[in-house]
Amino acid sequence: MAVRVNGLPCKNPSWVQANDFHFSGMHIPGNTSNVVGSSVTPAFVFQIPGLNTLGISLARLDFAPWGVIPPHAHPRATEILTVLEGKIEVGFVTSNPQNRHISKVLNKGDVFVFPVNLVHYQRNVGNTYAVAIVALSSQNPGVNLIGNAVFGSNPDISTDILAKAFQVSEDVISDIKLKF
Amino acid sequence: MAVRVNGLPCKNPSWVQANDFHFSGMHIPGNTSNVVGSSVTPAFVFQIPGLNTLGISLARLDFAPWGVIPPHAHPRATEILTVLEGKIEVGFVTSNPQNRHISKVLNKGDVFVFPVNLVHYQRNVGNTYAVAIVALSSQNPGVNLIGNAVFGSNPDISTDILAKAFQVSEDVISDIKLKF
Amino acid sequence: MAVRVNGLPCKNPSWVQANDFHFSGMHIPGNTSNVVGSSVTPAFVFQIPGLNTLGISLARLDFAPWGVIPPHAHPRATEILTVLEGKIEVGFVTSNPQNRHISKVLNKGDVFVFPVNLVHYQRNVGNTYAVAIVALSSQNPGVNLIGNAVFGSNPDISTDILAKAFQVSEDVISDIKLKF
Amino acid sequence: MAVRVNGLPCKNPSWVQANDFHFSGMHIPGNTSNVVGSSVTPAFVFQIPGLNTLGISLARLDFAPWGVIPPHAHPRATEILTVLEGKIEVGFVTSNPQNRHISKVLNKGDVFVFPVNLVHYQRNVGNTYAVAIVALSSQNPGVNLIGNAVFGSNPDISTDILAKAFQVSEDVISDIKLKF
Amino acid sequence: MAVRVNGLPCKNPSWVQANDFHFSGMHIPGNTSNVVGSSVTPAFVFQIPGLNTLGISLARLDFAPWGVIPPHAHPRATEILTVLEGKIEVGFVTSNPQNRHISKVLNKGDVFVFPVNLVHYQRNVGNTYAVAIVALSSQNPGVNLIGNAVFGSNPDISTDILAKAFQVSEDVISDIKLKF
Amino acid sequence: MAVRVNGLPCKNPSWVQANDFHFSGMHIPGNTSNVVGSSVTPAFVFQIPGLNTLGISLARLDFAPWGVIPPHAHPRATEILTVLEGKIEVGFVTSNPQNRHISKVLNKGDVFVFPVNLVHYQRNVGNTYAVAIVALSSQNPGVNLIGNAVFGSNPDISTDILAKAFQVSEDVISDIKLKF
Repeated sequence: MAVRVNGLPCKNPSWVQANDFHFSGMHIPGNTSNVVGSSVTPAFVFQIPGLNTLGISLARLDFAPWGVIPPHAHPRATEILTVLEGKIEVGFVTSNPQNRHISKVLNKGDVFVFPVNLVHYQRNVGNTYAVAIVALSSQNPGVNLIGNAVFGSNPDISTDILAKAFQVSEDVISDIKLKF
Repeated sequence: MAVRVNGLPCKNPSWVQANDFHFSGMHIPGNTSNVVGSSVTPAFVFQIPGLNTLGISLARLDFAPWGVIPPHAHPRATEILTVLEGKIEVGFVTSNPQNRHISKVLNKGDVFVFPVNLVHYQRNVGNTYAVAIVALSSQNPGVNLIGNAVFGSNPDISTDILAKAFQVSEDVISDIKLKF
Repeated sequence: MAVRVNGLPCKNPSWVQANDFHFSGMHIPGNTSNVVGSSVTPAFVFQIPGLNTLGISLARLDFAPWGVIPPHAHPRATEILTVLEGKIEVGFVTSNPQNRHISKVLNKGDVFVFPVNLVHYQRNVGNTYAVAIVALSSQNPGVNLIGNAVFGSNPDISTDILAKAFQVSEDVISDIKLKF
Repeated sequence: MAVRVNGLPCKNPSWVQANDFHFSGMHIPGNTSNVVGSSVTPAFVFQIPGLNTLGISLARLDFAPWGVIPPHAHPRATEILTVLEGKIEVGFVTSNPQNRHISKVLNKGDVFVFPVNLVHYQRNVGNTYAVAIVALSSQNPGVNLIGNAVFGSNPDISTDILAKAFQVSEDVISDIKLKF
Repeated sequence: MAVRVNGLPCKNPSWVQANDFHFSGMHIPGNTSNVVGSSVTPAFVFQIPGLNTLGISLARLDFAPWGVIPPHAHPRATEILTVLEGKIEVGFVTSNPQNRHISKVLNKGDVFVFPVNLVHYQRNVGNTYAVAIVALSSQNPGVNLIGNAVFGSNPDISTDILAKAFQVSEDVISDIKLKF
Repeated sequence: MAVRVNGLPCKNPSWVQANDFHFSGMHIPGNTSNVVGSSVTPAFVFQIPGLNTLGISLARLDFAPWGVIPPHAHPRATEILTVLEGKIEVGFVTSNPQNRHISKVLNKGDVFVFPVNLVHYQRNVGNTYAVAIVALSSQNPGVNLIGNAVFGSNPDISTDILAKAFQVSEDVISDIKLKF
């Protein structure tokens, strides 16, 4: 078995090639024909094996008009976003008990930072497609997608736990679960 | 101004006293007369100043019968829980896209681990009070309480963003927001 | 061979089960019928494999009346102790040249912190059994038990080195060595 | 004095504003009318104070036709580059004694990684302007610009040391020094 | 107040001088006219302020014939020793429960490593003076001198705790305490 | 395959021997009959396998009269140098844009620190042989030798890139390349 560091392959420096550090296609729009109207094209350690241990990665975000990337958190990475095209509303929420919502509408060329592991979202607030490049401070940032974690886990979390947690009827929880 | 390390006071080792490393009251039940039927008594760096930089802390959890600690994540800490009294259901969800729900019903003397920054919850599944001690791998673990971050932030996140994210009507989102 | 991280197995997240994060029996008293009148029940990475890389662990401490956990240090962990039953005297010593002895008598519900790698001890100062739960800021905290390291190593450290170090006769050193 | 972490200001989370995490202007071309035909527009912790401790930053690179960013190394950061416009040759050199030169010509949408602290360069290999966005795995990556460090330091390194190091006459060294 | 990092002054890079990184006198023998026949000359962050955050330091060890540096541990540093003059026996003990004693007699030009935080000692095993240079993997390695921590702390640890820990009479403990 | 940590073998603590932590020969002068008049004798993890993960290493430096160790940087280590014999000029350059050259002439017993990853050099400024011991804050410090990285890589960096970077004619670059 090859040498592994951090659970992933670690190639001998004498054998690495330029392709171990390369990825192509960041100029190609992703498919946003989905229920949230957005898409994420990752360039993480799984796409660029030479990133292992190097603590950084990228992704391209595409948004249909009014498309949304739903609330989520990256357990191992701060995110820094640059708007390439369009007008994008972004926000993050500080931890409990403050739960401050820090948000801004960004235009082309604007940069915004989402501190590591805080819940955040992005939304296209224009009638045209929008595009952003994000960099993340880990080669494997991970994502906790709030809706999927809470309402769409496998197996699901008991409806009565969620009804008590969100203080709504079990019917409302059951309805939301159907979407995930 | 006193010397600070990590943003918090760092007392000269020649001046520390036993009280800088001490906290009392972990045997006293917390007040669970609230909507979720649970309470958390922390012993973090804010309660024990000598914990600064030492990477550990504690809390006592109390549960009324069927009380819940709602889904949340600790951005800087793994949690390890020991049941002192009662029967407690616990679970965490792995990150997207797997969203595996790993859960178990624990009895007195059982220990369970919640890996750093994964969404997790606890629920008393008995008709008596339940008590647990948790240790956390940070002196300041932080908490992202999902309900409060998503539905109760200040100011709130636009209802239409959340409606699209959770794929429900804006009325449902507005109803949930009222509870936070 | 399975993937290892940190020298220990690292299971694929798709294969982990609740039992990888679980341990039972922390409510069961340890056997204190030994020369120091104490016992330690660990829940480290060797007992809970899912703790690997997560930076925390637990142990239960039992003390017969006036039982002692002899001076020792944890090379990789701060320890935070909670008294569940009884009255326990605890102390640690700061590093040379101060060698300050910070100590306190703890009662039920009291919490005390032993900073990483400082020499410390615990003693039951009551006529009943005492119990504590300790959490440590490493999944594999290690222990340097001073008596065993200095007087009971294998092979032993030369008697004349220890006689000079502790400034006693070689007979005294030889007598102590016999006990380890 | 305000609280500092890492030598830089650390604002109370209750006081941060969206502007602490924001930068604008990444769509504006830099001025490449200089001897190397390139320009760097940074968005580091000095431009975005909220980046402090978050371990990431950005920069925009502009190249006139055949413009060069000379050999340099970032002491605290891996760099990941995305070509927005044009055709850019990039390369890095592994450490001694291998000194392997890993290089590639990149087109629009290509991504390339420069591992932390290795000497690297970029060059526009087209007759049009070229643009790239780079992300760096530190809020303050630093740069050791080889030419300036070796031939343009203040005060300068003795000419005879450099003549022996590069095995050329002192006149050649003196000539190069004049350019820095 | 000046900027501090890590609790110690952090000078602006524009103001540092060569003397911030300099120490002299490592060729001067220390005074070994003491009960253990040894001396330590440190070059830590307290002697070389520019070492702050840089993770390394030095010390010179001098030994009278058969002089000893008593058992101790460095809580924050591995030590690597080079014999400049003489013949030195060295050893360290692995952690409990193995307590393996790894030792060797070193001659001029020999190098030996003491892993971080393990109990270790050095002894001149010749009839001439011996000298060593040690490097430590921290700018502030700290030292837990076992004898002083256990038998010479201030205030002292109760004699009956130590009697039980080392399984000797209280008289023996009292005698040892007198020497510290 | 044996367990590896950090890409290198990690022996079971029960099997380690004193020789895993030992190296001999640091008193033997290196061969300085080369074009720069210097030699480096390393004691890194490749020579002392027990250094793996311990974060420190050593080297002996020998200098013929007026011999030079050319400008280089260690990507993973601060260096601390002790002069054993002779008179040695040392210097490092801070990062761009300051490029401050911090230098000093050292005598026997002098110690000097080269902060991690800054370009530095050493030169014997006497008519006798000079000797130094250096410690480095990594078991595998690495070295970027500026001349070899820039002018001697394999394959080489395009002459016109270097000509533009150093602002000299391509002939000058070609001449320097011939020496590497």
